[in-house]
Amino acid sequence: MIRLDSRDSGFAEGFRRLLSVKREIAEDVDETVRGIIAGVVSGGDAALVDYTRRFDRLGEDFSPARLRVTPDEVEAAVAACPAEARAALALAAERIETYHRAQVPGDHLATDDLGVTAGWRWTALESVGLYVPGGTASYPSSVLMNAVPARVAGVPRIVMVVPTPEGQLNPLVLAAAKLAGIDEIYRVGGAQAVAALAYGTETIAPVAKIVGPGNAYVAAAKRRVFGQVGIDMIAGPSEVLILADGAANPDWIAADLLAQAEHDTAAQAILITDSDALARSAEEAVERALTTLPRAEIARASWRDYGAIIRVESFEQAIPLVDQLAPEHLEIETEEAEALAARIRNAGAIFLGAHTPEAIGDYVGGPNHVLPTARSARFSSGLGVLDFMKRTSILRCDPAALRALGPAAIALGRSEGLDGHARSVAIRLNL
Amino acid sequence: MIRLDSRDSGFAEGFRRLLSVKREIAEDVDETVRGIIAGVVSGGDAALVDYTRRFDRLGEDFSPARLRVTPDEVEAAVAACPAEARAALALAAERIETYHRAQVPGDHLATDDLGVTAGWRWTALESVGLYVPGGTASYPSSVLMNAVPARVAGVPRIVMVVPTPEGQLNPLVLAAAKLAGIDEIYRVGGAQAVAALAYGTETIAPVAKIVGPGNAYVAAAKRRVFGQVGIDMIAGPSEVLILADGAANPDWIAADLLAQAEHDTAAQAILITDSDALARSAEEAVERALTTLPRAEIARASWRDYGAIIRVESFEQAIPLVDQLAPEHLEIETEEAEALAARIRNAGAIFLGAHTPEAIGDYVGGPNHVLPTARSARFSSGLGVLDFMKRTSILRCDPAALRALGPAAIALGRSEGLDGHARSVAIRLNL
Repeated sequence: MIRLDSRDSGFAEGFRRLLSVKREIAEDVDETVRGIIAGVVSGGDAALVDYTRRFDRLGEDFSPARLRVTPDEVEAAVAACPAEARAALALAAERIETYHRAQVPGDHLATDDLGVTAGWRWTALESVGLYVPGGTASYPSSVLMNAVPARVAGVPRIVMVVPTPEGQLNPLVLAAAKLAGIDEIYRVGGAQAVAALAYGTETIAPVAKIVGPGNAYVAAAKRRVFGQVGIDMIAGPSEVLILADGAANPDWIAADLLAQAEHDTAAQAILITDSDALARSAEEAVERALTTLPRAEIARASWRDYGAIIRVESFEQAIPLVDQLAPEHLEIETEEAEALAARIRNAGAIFLGAHTPEAIGDYVGGPNHVLPTARSARFSSGLGVLDFMKRTSILRCDPAALRALGPAAIALGRSEGLDGHARSVAIRLNL
Repeated sequence: MIRLDSRDSGFAEGFRRLLSVKREIAEDVDETVRGIIAGVVSGGDAALVDYTRRFDRLGEDFSPARLRVTPDEVEAAVAACPAEARAALALAAERIETYHRAQVPGDHLATDDLGVTAGWRWTALESVGLYVPGGTASYPSSVLMNAVPARVAGVPRIVMVVPTPEGQLNPLVLAAAKLAGIDEIYRVGGAQAVAALAYGTETIAPVAKIVGPGNAYVAAAKRRVFGQVGIDMIAGPSEVLILADGAANPDWIAADLLAQAEHDTAAQAILITDSDALARSAEEAVERALTTLPRAEIARASWRDYGAIIRVESFEQAIPLVDQLAPEHLEIETEEAEALAARIRNAGAIFLGAHTPEAIGDYVGGPNHVLPTARSARFSSGLGVLDFMKRTSILRCDPAALRALGPAAIALGRSEGLDGHARSVAIRLNL
C-alpha cells in the first residue's frame, strides 16, 4: 500500500508513479484467438461445438442441437434460484430500466430560413450479442446492466452467450436473462463464441454489436472482430477512489475500499483525505476487516500492491488529482459533497455522501455498473442506451435552398480539388 | 461495374458478393509505427523533429522552436486565401455550429420515492487533438467538421497537427482552424504526431482524445495509442448509395455517383432503381461525365471496380438491401422519399430529394461529414458533439434510501460470492 502526503517534497513524483502503474498483465493470446476465429468462420457449428467440447470440457454428446438453451432449461433454472436473490434481481432490473429510460435520445429536424431541413434520427441496433463469463465471474447483475439498456434502446434481437465449464451454468444468470427478456441463449464462450456472434454459424445468426466482459481471450477476440461488428469498451481491473474527511466512519471507508479490492488482485482502491486521523484509522480498519473477509487473499494482494492513502491539505488540492486518476468509481464523503462533485471533470460514476456505498450502484441504484477503467473516464462514458443506438443525419434542400447554399459548396469543392463534388451541385443550378 | 437485377436467379449470390467485397488493402505498417511511437515516447521533441525532418523532407533548420505554427503565420495564410473560399468556409463553419449546437446533451438528476437521487452529468473532454493530413488530402472542410463539434461541446483545449511535406501547408487549412478557434497548431504528421499527442513531448502537452483522418500509418498509430487516449473511428473508403426512380435526372445521378467515385479508387458508388430506363441512362451519363472530369482516372477505376447498378422491382424490396449495405451516404430521389427514409435502419447520413446532392452535406449543409463507412452504420454514428463529451453517473442515497435498497444489494452481493460488497452495505445498516 502506498502512502502519499501532499506536504512531502516527493509527492509529485510519487503521484506520477501511482498514475502510471500498470495493473494488467497483457497475455499474448492473439495468435490463438486468430486461429479460433478462422476456425469458426470456416467450420461453423461443427467448429464451434468442437472448441466448446475441448475448452469447456464437455462430452461427445454436446452437439449443435445442444447449443441453444431451451425454454424448459431456463424455467428450471429460475425455479432453482433462491427467492430472495430472484426478488433482488427483479428490483434491480426495474430500477435499471427506470434509470435508463431517461437516456433515450430525441430526434431532431428543423427547417431554417434558407429552406434547408436538417436533423437526425436515432435508431436501435438491429441485434446485439451479450457475452457472459462462466464460472465464478458469472455475474447475474452484469447480465442486467448490459441487457436492460439494449432492451430500453429498442434492440429487437438480444442474444446471450455463456460458457458452461463442465456443464455448469449459474441459474441466476438465466434468471437475469429472463428478467431482461432474453430468450436466445447459447452455451458457448471464449473466442469461439465471439467469432460465432460476429460471423454467424448455421445455428447462430450474426449480430451487429458484441458487449459484455470476458477474459483475455474474449477481449482479444472482440478487438479482432471490431469493424465486422461493433464492440463495447474493453474493461480493465476495477477501481474506486474515495474522498473522505475527518467526519467519515473509518470502518465504512475500509469496507468500501475492500469491496473494490476483493474483485481482483489487480483492482485498485485509493483513499484521499484531509485528515491525518482518518488516514490512520482507515488503514487500521482495513487490516481489521481483512481478518474476516472471505475473499481476504485477493483483497489483501490488491490493497498491498495497488492500494493508496493520499493525505491532502484540502479537497481543493484533490480536484486535479482526481481528474488525473479519472477513477471508474468516485465516492465523496465530505461536507458539501455535491459542490465538490460539480468541480470534478473525470470520473465514471460518483457516489455522494456516507450512505451511498459503491456496492449499491453495482446492483440496485439504477445507474449502469459498466464503467470506464484505467483512466479512460477522461474520454469515455459508462454503458448506456446510446451504446445500443446510432444516429443517422438527415438533410433536405428544396430548390431555393440549393440555390442559396450551392455556390459555397461549389467554391469549397473546387478549392479542395474535388471538381466532381462541385459539378454535382452546379449541374442542378445550370452553373 | 456490377449490374444486378433482383429478377435474376443469381441475384442473392451477386448481392452477397457485393456486400463482402473488401475495398481496402491492409498495409502492414504496424511494426514501423510501433518503433516510431516508442521513439517519440523516449526521445520527446528531439525524436519528433528528427522523424519530421526525415518523413516530411525538411532541412536541418527545422527545430523544436519551429514545431508550433505562429499567429503571424496563420494571419499570413488567411490573407493568402481567395476571398470566395474564405467566405464559403465561414458560411460552412456557421452552419455546422448551428446544427451541432442542437446536439448538446442535457444533464439529468431525479429523486425517487425511496429517497434515491440518481442521474448523470455530461462534461467536455479536457483536450482533443485533431489530425489533419498534408498534401492533396488536406481538406479544410474536414478541419471544420472535426473541430466545430469539439468547440460546441466545450472542449477547452483543441490542438491541431498537420504535416508540411517539403514545408508546404494549405493556407485554407489554417483559415479553417482560425474559424474554428484553434490557435495551438503543430507542423507534424504521421505516427510521430499521433505519438506526441498521446504521450506528450516537451513542446506538445498530451491530449485526452485524438480525432481526424489519416493514412495507414496514422490509422495504425491511433489503434496503438487507444487506451492511453480516446480515438474516433478509423474511416475506410467513402461510399454513396442512391435510390432513384424513373423520374430522376440521369445526369444528376451520374454526377452524384462520380462525386463519390472521384475521392479514391477504393470509393464505392451504387445506384438502386426500379426503372430499367434510369439504370441504362444513368450508366450512359456516367460514361459521358467521365470524359470531362478532372479526376476521371480515379473515378473511372472506382466505378469500374466497385460501382454497381441494382435493378429492383420495387423500393419495398430495396429496404433490406440498403440495411445490409448500411451506406455511409444514402441519397433518396424517389416519390415519398421521407416515407422510404423512415423505414431504413442503417445509414450514416440520408439526403432527401433531387435537390440535395451529397456534396452539399460534405460542405455547407450543417450535418457532419465524418460518417461510418464499410457497413459500420449498422452499429455506429457519424461524428458529433457526444464524441467530445463523456457522461458521469451520479447516485446519492439518504439513510432511508439505503435501508430500502440495502437488503437487495446484500442479497445480490452474497449470491455473486462478493461478501465484501454485501458488508459495505450491511455495516451501514447494522445488519
